[in-house]
Amino acid sequence: MKIVFASGNSGKLREASEIFKGFEIISIKSYQDWIPPEENGSTFLQNSVVKAEAASRVVRDLPVLADDSGLVVPALGGAPGIMSARFSAEGTDEANRAKLLAMLKGVRDRSAYFACSAVMIFPDGSVIAERGVCPGRIIDEQRGGNGFGYDPVFVPDGFSETLAELPEEVKNSLSHRGTAFGKLISKISRSN
Amino acid sequence: MKIVFASGNSGKLREASEIFKGFEIISIKSYQDWIPPEENGSTFLQNSVVKAEAASRVVRDLPVLADDSGLVVPALGGAPGIMSARFSAEGTDEANRAKLLAMLKGVRDRSAYFACSAVMIFPDGSVIAERGVCPGRIIDEQRGGNGFGYDPVFVPDGFSETLAELPEEVKNSLSHRGTAFGKLISKISRSN
Repeated sequence: MKIVFASGNSGKLREASEIFKGFEIISIKSYQDWIPPEENGSTFLQNSVVKAEAASRVVRDLPVLADDSGLVVPALGGAPGIMSARFSAEGTDEANRAKLLAMLKGVRDRSAYFACSAVMIFPDGSVIAERGVCPGRIIDEQRGGNGFGYDPVFVPDGFSETLAELPEEVKNSLSHRGTAFGKLISKISRSN
Repeated sequence: MKIVFASGNSGKLREASEIFKGFEIISIKSYQDWIPPEENGSTFLQNSVVKAEAASRVVRDLPVLADDSGLVVPALGGAPGIMSARFSAEGTDEANRAKLLAMLKGVRDRSAYFACSAVMIFPDGSVIAERGVCPGRIIDEQRGGNGFGYDPVFVPDGFSETLAELPEEVKNSLSHRGTAFGKLISKISRSN
């Protein structure tokens, strides 16, 4: 089964291909008339739907997969949340992490969680979406070279390594995106 | 199975109860802390998700059902579309129909379709959505006392009566909302 993944992010594409074993994950970038939509929703689910719909308008004949995910830090009132990828003015992973660590300087409560909404739209307009959450805490240094985004500053509950230090298979088995994608896979497998 | 329907519209509530036979449909109005959200999406699906999420935040322990639907008139560039309920300044059914008939005065192509996106969010965050479409045409008079919205000016393909002249069971069997709700029902029935 072929699935078009509605993301221009190469890190996410690699993760999706790893998790959706047995499926052929195609990048939306191979569709030349695809334009990344404005992510103007106010929740992860809404933004994942915006991305999936934008992709399904150009794909038409294959199911599309999209996700929206981010880091939620209760001590920061839920920030960066849906703004995770656009948290700093620069919008790079490095600048986003630096801003987060600066804001958490001296803050006692380091608890945080990653949340992901993953959605699939099928050619007949049918939609399924699932949510995944990965609880943990923010440390005050950056560790590890795997992963991307906030992975190097996030230690998931039950581990001492950051998400960027864990092997990909381990990360995918516990991560927010891995959980949401896994739920989608079990849903489409059941219905086939 | 109890389902909370995220709409303050009594016509839609009646339709939903009629279609979801064997389910107990509860009005979101029985939840005092529910506030109708701003429908700021740009598609029926996005707006149905906005409504369902707003409801699921106050309901929590039961599945919620929401829909967004409207009339699409190709000769009017797709209008009223997602603005169907807010088409005229007054925003009443009567004023909306009057504005539509005025805009279509002298227009040859009277083809139109109703579209509906219906979504359910379950307490675990799982989401399913389905789409329904009812093709037909806009006549230049108003006929029938059943139904609501644009029903009295819409004649579905294969009929000579307007949706407001057809008995409720017939309307629900062919309408956009009936189709979308029916697909949801078959999906939740299969997964139980």
